[in-house]
Amino acid sequence: MIVLFTDFGPGGPYTGQMKAVLAREAPGVPVVDLADDLPACQPEPAAYLLAAFAPAFPPGAVFVCVVDPGVGGARAPLALEAGGRRYVGPDNGLLAIVSRRAGDARRAGDARWHTITWRPPRLSASFHGRDLFAPVAAMLARGEPVPGEPLDGAATVGADWPDDRAAIVYVDPYGNAMTGLRAAGLPGDAAIVAGGRRFERLRTFSDAAPGAAFWYENANGLAEVAVNRGRAARALGLRVGTPVRVEAAGGGE
Amino acid sequence: MIVLFTDFGPGGPYTGQMKAVLAREAPGVPVVDLADDLPACQPEPAAYLLAAFAPAFPPGAVFVCVVDPGVGGARAPLALEAGGRRYVGPDNGLLAIVSRRAGDARRAGDARWHTITWRPPRLSASFHGRDLFAPVAAMLARGEPVPGEPLDGAATVGADWPDDRAAIVYVDPYGNAMTGLRAAGLPGDAAIVAGGRRFERLRTFSDAAPGAAFWYENANGLAEVAVNRGRAARALGLRVGTPVRVEAAGGGE
Amino acid sequence: MIVLFTDFGPGGPYTGQMKAVLAREAPGVPVVDLADDLPACQPEPAAYLLAAFAPAFPPGAVFVCVVDPGVGGARAPLALEAGGRRYVGPDNGLLAIVSRRAGDARRAGDARWHTITWRPPRLSASFHGRDLFAPVAAMLARGEPVPGEPLDGAATVGADWPDDRAAIVYVDPYGNAMTGLRAAGLPGDAAIVAGGRRFERLRTFSDAAPGAAFWYENANGLAEVAVNRGRAARALGLRVGTPVRVEAAGGGE
Repeated sequence: MIVLFTDFGPGGPYTGQMKAVLAREAPGVPVVDLADDLPACQPEPAAYLLAAFAPAFPPGAVFVCVVDPGVGGARAPLALEAGGRRYVGPDNGLLAIVSRRAGDARRAGDARWHTITWRPPRLSASFHGRDLFAPVAAMLARGEPVPGEPLDGAATVGADWPDDRAAIVYVDPYGNAMTGLRAAGLPGDAAIVAGGRRFERLRTFSDAAPGAAFWYENANGLAEVAVNRGRAARALGLRVGTPVRVEAAGGGE
Repeated sequence: MIVLFTDFGPGGPYTGQMKAVLAREAPGVPVVDLADDLPACQPEPAAYLLAAFAPAFPPGAVFVCVVDPGVGGARAPLALEAGGRRYVGPDNGLLAIVSRRAGDARRAGDARWHTITWRPPRLSASFHGRDLFAPVAAMLARGEPVPGEPLDGAATVGADWPDDRAAIVYVDPYGNAMTGLRAAGLPGDAAIVAGGRRFERLRTFSDAAPGAAFWYENANGLAEVAVNRGRAARALGLRVGTPVRVEAAGGGE
Repeated sequence: MIVLFTDFGPGGPYTGQMKAVLAREAPGVPVVDLADDLPACQPEPAAYLLAAFAPAFPPGAVFVCVVDPGVGGARAPLALEAGGRRYVGPDNGLLAIVSRRAGDARRAGDARWHTITWRPPRLSASFHGRDLFAPVAAMLARGEPVPGEPLDGAATVGADWPDDRAAIVYVDPYGNAMTGLRAAGLPGDAAIVAGGRRFERLRTFSDAAPGAAFWYENANGLAEVAVNRGRAARALGLRVGTPVRVEAAGGGE
């Protein structure tokens, strides 16, 4: 399986051009669009989402990760194997967080990095997703080795980012505001403060009154601020990058 | 064929996570996105759309229907067989209308309901589309029986909804405003009143002057209010839920 | 491979209905969404995009092209073979530009047109994409001949359009504004004037300061106005149809 994880935008022509390459270079391999609405040109929030979403995908999946504002510049193209899954993408931190977490706990710590040294006959200056990352993903899906050189240790960009990010990293199509915090690491009765308001934890939407705001552990393990039957981000003034704070139960501001 | 019918929103991560499950559990079965832009958290208008769209799909198709604001609460998960097609979704009325209409007239009245009793090893509180409905759809697509118990009669929610809905149920990406009324049931010369304006019937867009508003029988059999080369909903102040009224020819307001 | 190129809008039900037809009529043939966010009801800008995007697709690809405001009226349905690829769509200019350019230079000038005379048992008045163009595309993908009559010379609509279009033809999901001008035909040091501002040429985004506007040759060969890490169309007041002008280096306004 090849998984697309990009900021290309719904409906536009870039995802289709990548899929045409994949259909030609890896015929018969299922291609799944995981997201094409990532915050444009912002690798950092996307890195926390990728780490949250990846464990639901099967071992061997190859993720093509393209949030790449530096395309055509000096940043290197990378390949990563971690937790039994493979990733290709730019060295801008996008793969940094997933490299630290293994979906399969038995294989934790086995992150292996390569710099991709292969180049296509024609490489555009602005669309490496189509010209470089998709062909390399097809090679990996076909069982070929990474066409590049091993890198010792983690890629540089993002290596100093925290394991969890205390900020909104994504607003989903319902308007729910995901944080970069894993809920499993928070006290069960902690509150989350964001945009000047304090949210208590609930189990899920149907436990809140219509219009009520709360936070909960979403289906991918992240702490998420939501409004039952409402659009949380708009109602609460939250956007990607808005900082959040965890407060112990009963704590005031 | 597995058909996705959701309010997950274009571009977001939920459709992709469902597809990853389907690719693993029902490999090789084609998956078609019918809609992921249904009015969020509103099963009622979606129910009329599903009934209108389903007949164009082949016998045996399995629809995964997820407009599910009560996810994680008490509402039951259901499976339906009607008109030679199969459906899985929540007991919130979403499947109520399609259960009354058989695409294949020879099989009308054969709706069979089951409560799904199977549960996955891990069931999130907020994403039964991925964790429950997609795996069950894969079972059905593989030819397995519904993992549940037969239900006598129709599911409860939506059983008292009318066969046709005199309101706007969907605004399409062009801005056309679909009603929940089947055009075949309306007098050929009837007018439709909505948003305080009266619309006469035309055959199709090219029969209207540019900018002119009208109603017509759309390609799925519903009465639809449209503006030739314009965005009807915005121009006419129509939105999902706006009531509409049918008037005999010549009738005034 | 079958390629979809439409103005159906992201998320809506029309693309899915076409895919259901294709899955039934051409099972196993990969279907790629190239674009479903084309400017609604505007065949002219879409014609220049199609000509720019098509060469990246493999020989034999069948494009289903539906930007069809005249659906249900007198305009004819067409099939085109050009540059080793096949196209079906309405006679409204949508296929005019791609017919003049062969992706494979050895086959330039070999455009062959047919009027499609086949009609399905049931043809709606508003959705020929599903009812007519998709079934014909499936026939072509299965290796069958065009079900129609050869046309001498080019189709009529669009035959007098220029080879390049000095206007914005598309705003992509990042907000970049593509023109209908092929960059290869412009002097290397030319500037582009649009919306009352003058833009110099750069190689790609990472060569511009954050927030700076420029033009560059995009990955599909078109001259495109962009802002590094910004939304050019909104920032610069550009939209589909805005005229652009090419100026020699050093030229003033």
